[in-house]
Amino acid sequence: MVKNGFKGGTRLFVDLKIWEDLLKSNRFLVFAGPCAVENLEQIIETAKIVKDSGAVGLRGGAFKPRTRPESFQGLGEEALKYLALAKAETGLLVVTEVIDEDSLNKALPVADILQVGSRNMQNYALLKLLAKVDKPVLLKRGLAATLEEWLGAVAYLEKGGNRKIILCERGIRTFETMTRNTLDISAVPLLKKLTPYPVIVDPSHAAGRRDIIPSLAKAAVAAGADGLLIEIHPEPERALSDGQQSLNFQEYEQLINELKPWVHVAGKRL
Amino acid sequence: MVKNGFKGGTRLFVDLKIWEDLLKSNRFLVFAGPCAVENLEQIIETAKIVKDSGAVGLRGGAFKPRTRPESFQGLGEEALKYLALAKAETGLLVVTEVIDEDSLNKALPVADILQVGSRNMQNYALLKLLAKVDKPVLLKRGLAATLEEWLGAVAYLEKGGNRKIILCERGIRTFETMTRNTLDISAVPLLKKLTPYPVIVDPSHAAGRRDIIPSLAKAAVAAGADGLLIEIHPEPERALSDGQQSLNFQEYEQLINELKPWVHVAGKRL
Amino acid sequence: MVKNGFKGGTRLFVDLKIWEDLLKSNRFLVFAGPCAVENLEQIIETAKIVKDSGAVGLRGGAFKPRTRPESFQGLGEEALKYLALAKAETGLLVVTEVIDEDSLNKALPVADILQVGSRNMQNYALLKLLAKVDKPVLLKRGLAATLEEWLGAVAYLEKGGNRKIILCERGIRTFETMTRNTLDISAVPLLKKLTPYPVIVDPSHAAGRRDIIPSLAKAAVAAGADGLLIEIHPEPERALSDGQQSLNFQEYEQLINELKPWVHVAGKRL
Amino acid sequence: MVKNGFKGGTRLFVDLKIWEDLLKSNRFLVFAGPCAVENLEQIIETAKIVKDSGAVGLRGGAFKPRTRPESFQGLGEEALKYLALAKAETGLLVVTEVIDEDSLNKALPVADILQVGSRNMQNYALLKLLAKVDKPVLLKRGLAATLEEWLGAVAYLEKGGNRKIILCERGIRTFETMTRNTLDISAVPLLKKLTPYPVIVDPSHAAGRRDIIPSLAKAAVAAGADGLLIEIHPEPERALSDGQQSLNFQEYEQLINELKPWVHVAGKRL
Repeated sequence: MVKNGFKGGTRLFVDLKIWEDLLKSNRFLVFAGPCAVENLEQIIETAKIVKDSGAVGLRGGAFKPRTRPESFQGLGEEALKYLALAKAETGLLVVTEVIDEDSLNKALPVADILQVGSRNMQNYALLKLLAKVDKPVLLKRGLAATLEEWLGAVAYLEKGGNRKIILCERGIRTFETMTRNTLDISAVPLLKKLTPYPVIVDPSHAAGRRDIIPSLAKAAVAAGADGLLIEIHPEPERALSDGQQSLNFQEYEQLINELKPWVHVAGKRL
Repeated sequence: MVKNGFKGGTRLFVDLKIWEDLLKSNRFLVFAGPCAVENLEQIIETAKIVKDSGAVGLRGGAFKPRTRPESFQGLGEEALKYLALAKAETGLLVVTEVIDEDSLNKALPVADILQVGSRNMQNYALLKLLAKVDKPVLLKRGLAATLEEWLGAVAYLEKGGNRKIILCERGIRTFETMTRNTLDISAVPLLKKLTPYPVIVDPSHAAGRRDIIPSLAKAAVAAGADGLLIEIHPEPERALSDGQQSLNFQEYEQLINELKPWVHVAGKRL
Repeated sequence: MVKNGFKGGTRLFVDLKIWEDLLKSNRFLVFAGPCAVENLEQIIETAKIVKDSGAVGLRGGAFKPRTRPESFQGLGEEALKYLALAKAETGLLVVTEVIDEDSLNKALPVADILQVGSRNMQNYALLKLLAKVDKPVLLKRGLAATLEEWLGAVAYLEKGGNRKIILCERGIRTFETMTRNTLDISAVPLLKKLTPYPVIVDPSHAAGRRDIIPSLAKAAVAAGADGLLIEIHPEPERALSDGQQSLNFQEYEQLINELKPWVHVAGKRL
Repeated sequence: MVKNGFKGGTRLFVDLKIWEDLLKSNRFLVFAGPCAVENLEQIIETAKIVKDSGAVGLRGGAFKPRTRPESFQGLGEEALKYLALAKAETGLLVVTEVIDEDSLNKALPVADILQVGSRNMQNYALLKLLAKVDKPVLLKRGLAATLEEWLGAVAYLEKGGNRKIILCERGIRTFETMTRNTLDISAVPLLKKLTPYPVIVDPSHAAGRRDIIPSLAKAAVAAGADGLLIEIHPEPERALSDGQQSLNFQEYEQLINELKPWVHVAGKRL
């Protein structure tokens, strides 16, 4: 059972405390990092940049659900080890995706926030497991999920006893082809009305292309989002996945600088 | 591991033999039954009707992924017991949905064909488990999955060693509201070209309404489908789920009769 | 006014009579021809093939609404002259698209059936003009029109006094990319229930690719369609538009032969 | 011909001058007003509020394309007369929709900006007429038009000689039902890269509901939009059309006040 997977209980308590304090503060919550953890150097280097930018969390995939089985599926436990080292180095909260009971048990000692990816938003078996975990769950919207269905997934977590939920709008599937998905910016104010949870936006997956990420990020701030989930990579053109939608460090730092006045108008701070 | 879940190995062999013989025959493959197994009487009564109609399989849900946690989630192991009894009574192949390792282990001794539902088409952890099972997998198309993504899910089964695959088109999400989903009839000829697997159609979920199911079923036959998955219920208006799209027994028998000349033109038999 | 555009009144009467007789018969209504009329030889040659196949009408575009202004926009009046000659030669009903008052006035003396294309389904100014014309209107479904909205467009024709309506399902816009559009086969039985008008299917625009047109055509027959609108061309690879979805003559003749047993089961004849 | 419809040439020149000066300024371009002009009092009262808010233009429909012919179709010429009076009173630029040559000729003496509605984005006959007019055209995105197709419509105006174009993103059709359409906020930065024209956003049609219009408006500013098109009405609950998405005067004034700091960060002024 999941409970058995808990290790390092003391640290866990600390993390939750940090999270709860964050939610009470007026911090704008930026999580940044690579699509997938690729090696130790990459993640440590990235974590430092993320820390310096004023972000609160480091994202990085260890278990990657990919459309084809031939595609890179993530480094698994090795990635978790690197994330733990990056966390020790920077103090950032670690967000990583889990896909089943096994990956959940492995991620629990390292992750501060457990991500459910779009493809698994309606994997209710997984949600029922996460409902029993005492950690925040970052629940991404399904690729073609209505808000009603997303709230249904939220209800599975709530019913099982977990109300530490972060909702992440990451674009929905439409007919438009110039972007990978269509960012449903309306979801932000609607969810703020319908739920008590923080709502963040992932402009990287929504756009699927680097050039408009700053505009989408600012729009998210203005629409009332509580934070952002951003893909960055030391060398996007060499990334093992999602390179075309990852910012390099310089682009990321510029984005954060550009965001500041908008975050300020929103009454928050980075 | 899944292997440990195998019970009743002899019967299993027989089932696979039946399946392989079916595929070599020119039988049009009809699977019918309720959305969810609700009680023993319901499933036995339904199984007899299904058997008499010339169908090859009985469908019935034991583990139901539902949009809201308050909704009926299926009878679980009890349902499997009833399905086993219905199978003993009629000799029909049993199709039932699995949602994780636990439900898979429970379903294995009873199910002849393991169904992956739309919401789990991209649950690759589940697909990797099913890839190791020596039974046919009925893989439903995801609600908003492209054919490319569906073929990606197929590749997970193949890569893991399971090539006993049945593809089931069940309608995709569009803007149209008069139907629950939009049956993508083009998927049938495309999949027949792109894969060696039987392709069946679920007109019940596509339509979400009883009245046009016969038209969609005939269209499926004409488009080249190898079979149908149809929801029926002794009293649809009392069904615990999907009642509005379930045929009653009389409607089902009439549908089968109406289908016969079309199946004949297709060079197959019921 | 449109009325002033009427020429050759006597022949017009004959055409309407033919149309009304057709609707009372059990003929399955096939309309075939090129996307655009390109030259006299092309359309005469095509018309003969169409006539020999047992089809009732010749389709051919004179005024082509194209996504880009640089694209071939049709031969206009010259095309109408060629269509008139093809009609004189074969006796086929001529279907051609109109896009405004000017093209309507020009088409009236030649066309037996006036087509409203998908892009103009909600061009209510055009529908109000057509509502005053004493000829059948072939109203294509808008690219992303719901059935409700399509019925709204029908109501514009009815309100203005024209109840000679043919509805043509031609695929809707979805996320799927292997086909140009997604044929909404459910629209056929729904429209047959909701309106008294003939419902035909355009598998060519739905598929956007030659290979699955026969399967879609058969599905349309089985779903209860009253006819088909099919793009054919003497040399599809040289067509000025829509070549990739046009059948050559041999493919068209084979399609018609393959359709016959299905049309027979539907209780109709070609 | 359209040219014959020109009246009041001198004033026209002045209007264009105003428009050109506006584009050279750093004004954020707000157009507000009712969906449809309903009576003189309504439009005069609204125009004063719009003027006082610092907006540049008054929107108001005279010719309304409605899904059903029974619905209110606009007051036509009477509405134009009222708009002219409102313009005389306030000096606001008048934006109104045209749907064919007749309505265009009637609107020309009054309108400063000619609107093409979503349903007519691919009405190329209408675009060709507007391409010959020496006034700005506000081209709304089609309900399910890709950006490519929208740029195709732009190319029709450009090819005919009219480069006074304003692009208006107003939401696209998706599966989501909590909003009338899905505001495609990504369209704003993409169009700013791909065209030299002002890009404005219509949050009213995108949302289809009053409550999230302020959030969408702010998001539009942050994404880089040059302006907004907003539906307002003295008594939304009594509006003849689109009442549920219209702001009342107090809500509108509050929105404008809330927008100011965002517009300021964008380097513009109201």
